[in-house]
Amino acid sequence: MSGSDTLSQLEATLEARKSATPDESYVASLYGKGLNKILEKVGEEAVEVVLAAKEAECAGESSRKALIAETADLWFHSMVMLSHLGVSHREVLAELQKRFNMSGHEEKSSRKQ
Amino acid sequence: MSGSDTLSQLEATLEARKSATPDESYVASLYGKGLNKILEKVGEEAVEVVLAAKEAECAGESSRKALIAETADLWFHSMVMLSHLGVSHREVLAELQKRFNMSGHEEKSSRKQ
Amino acid sequence: MSGSDTLSQLEATLEARKSATPDESYVASLYGKGLNKILEKVGEEAVEVVLAAKEAECAGESSRKALIAETADLWFHSMVMLSHLGVSHREVLAELQKRFNMSGHEEKSSRKQ
Amino acid sequence: MSGSDTLSQLEATLEARKSATPDESYVASLYGKGLNKILEKVGEEAVEVVLAAKEAECAGESSRKALIAETADLWFHSMVMLSHLGVSHREVLAELQKRFNMSGHEEKSSRKQ
Repeated sequence: MSGSDTLSQLEATLEARKSATPDESYVASLYGKGLNKILEKVGEEAVEVVLAAKEAECAGESSRKALIAETADLWFHSMVMLSHLGVSHREVLAELQKRFNMSGHEEKSSRKQ
Repeated sequence: MSGSDTLSQLEATLEARKSATPDESYVASLYGKGLNKILEKVGEEAVEVVLAAKEAECAGESSRKALIAETADLWFHSMVMLSHLGVSHREVLAELQKRFNMSGHEEKSSRKQ
Repeated sequence: MSGSDTLSQLEATLEARKSATPDESYVASLYGKGLNKILEKVGEEAVEVVLAAKEAECAGESSRKALIAETADLWFHSMVMLSHLGVSHREVLAELQKRFNMSGHEEKSSRKQ
Repeated sequence: MSGSDTLSQLEATLEARKSATPDESYVASLYGKGLNKILEKVGEEAVEVVLAAKEAECAGESSRKALIAETADLWFHSMVMLSHLGVSHREVLAELQKRFNMSGHEEKSSRKQ
């Protein structure tokens, strides 16, 4: 299964969780707690990615799995945030697409204008 | 073009930047500055996502585009980090896939074991 | 009691917790879990400060207490980190002191050299 | 000079910068850019503290100075944020004081109630 399918399927799953109860689903419990709680998770996972990447640099191969897991956590909670705010991940991918249709330093001026 | 193709194409572009000079490419300049600089960017973009999401909640539709742009920045710099450390985004997507093959609170216990 | 006394007294308390058991003391349990756990807390509290400050801006007076509490959490966990790494807060204050003995934009060039 | 005096003097300096122009003062330029810019700095500096602490753990003594400098940056920008929002650092210190008048795990339950 391709990666796109993974993100699309995740988006559909997150959408479906909107009708679940907090007891049934971790995602439903995040929706119930509201945006601040979801953003705390995005922030926490970003810090855990940073720590895991430093470990991967220091400790090598043994930390690779942790880095993959933490990056998955960061993307997962970004997707929960988008879902909570009614934004599709396709709009984010379209933005990414626009950027690397350019080359070199154009990327940066594009991103920061 | 599907989302998967976007991430795969971005990964190929980031890989190609490894032979560019810092003057030619923003990504090459990040690689040149090393992991700490890349992780600073991941952290910065996570904070900008949090701020943009709060604005989107307070100010509504007008901030939607900023949220999409900041989330694209966060995913972009996560991809640069993975590329720098020799990890494919496919491994992150495979990890995400594993998780939502489960339902409800299983997600969480799976993620945090 | 002056603020300096507060930080000095906190430093002494954190030092004393090094001989406590994790069951007796939250700080001892952080020391026991190690630097990564302490840094996760620093990162989490920074995100909570950002969220509380945005609430204070949007919602006004009612969020002021939350902002004070979250900033206290951030400084508290910074102090735990310093203690864990054997650095006194006095060295941080001395660095701050050096900076604002200068005026205007000198601050910045001083900080970022 | 005691640490309390350092923070009080910094607070007075930050207050005085409110009548400076952005050209004259880095702090005035932050005030002028508004709360989001100040919070981006708080977030960035928190990430730099995390990175410096990991370096201090890996690389030892040589990174100690960087950790002190980054922690000073984090506290400095926290103080700018408080000043911008009209909160005195004395209220944060009073909150810290309340907490460690308790012992052991009481700290935590107090902080997280």
